[in-house]
This record gives sequence, C-alpha cells and structure tokens, in this order.
Amino acid sequence: MLGVLAGFLTTVGFIPQIIKGYRTKHMDDVSLLMPLVLGAGMLLWLLYGVSLENLPIVLWNAIAFSLNMVVVGLKLRYERDRPAYR
Amino acid sequence: MLGVLAGFLTTVGFIPQIIKGYRTKHMDDVSLLMPLVLGAGMLLWLLYGVSLENLPIVLWNAIAFSLNMVVVGLKLRYERDRPAYR
Repeated sequence: MLGVLAGFLTTVGFIPQIIKGYRTKHMDDVSLLMPLVLGAGMLLWLLYGVSLENLPIVLWNAIAFSLNMVVVGLKLRYERDRPAYR
Repeated sequence: MLGVLAGFLTTVGFIPQIIKGYRTKHMDDVSLLMPLVLGAGMLLWLLYGVSLENLPIVLWNAIAFSLNMVVVGLKLRYERDRPAYR
C-alpha cells in the first residue's frame, strides 16, 4: 500500500510541470537533461520490473516514462518555436 | 545491477536541473509542485525501503529526496528575489 502510494506520487509529480509548460508555452528554465536522464532510468526500472514480473513497477514506470517524454516534447517544441534566449 | 543503475539514473537526473537553475538564477518555468509531489513520493519510497529493510531503496530515495528539496529551494529563492512575472 505504501509502495503503491509512493509510486503514484513519483509518477504524477511530473503532471504539474506538463500543465505549467503547456499553459505558459515556456520551458526555458527546465533542463532538457533532467527528463532525458530520468526517462532512461525509468526504462531500466521498467525492464527491472519485467525481470521481477512485478506489474506495479512495470506500470508506474511506463506511465512515468511517458510523462517524462511529454516534458521532453514540450521543451523541444517551445524552444524550436522561439529560440532560447538564455 | 539493473536496479542499481536504474536507481542511479532516476536520482542523478535532478542534478542537471539544479545546475541549470543555479547558473541561470531562473526557475520561473519550473513547476514548484513537481519537486514537492516527487519529494513526498520519495519520502514514502524511503519508508517503504525501511519497512523492507532494503538499503538501496532507502539510500537512493534519501538522495533523490534531498536533490528535489534543493530544486524547491532554488525555485523559492529565485522567485523571492525577483517576483514571478508570468
């Protein structure tokens, strides 16, 4: 139960960043490396979950990986539309 | 081994954001809720690790929690110095 709530929070925590980025169309201050490195780690967690046949680990990390890729997408999109000025 | 590397990546992934924030002194585009919610989740992971007596889970999440609190600190500091304009 503790693990489920923990997995929930460390997954949905990226949603406020997605909402903020989408609303403001500004992602300049957000590091591109952050969601890339976190996403790579989550893919490994997913593989680890598969190797353990642990469905919660697989599912939470699949969702968290997807959310991080949305952050990457927003970052690239808003920098392409308007080149970084800092 | 897979789990160790996964834990490493999902922990150090926050460092680029800390470096970027510290260098630019700008955190406006970073959601405050993101590190707060992730940090709460990591505290629960830490407790979960304690209950399992799993040292890697405890250690990675202690470090990741600390890094997220640094992100929170940078965010609050740079907004206090220079009120948000968007």
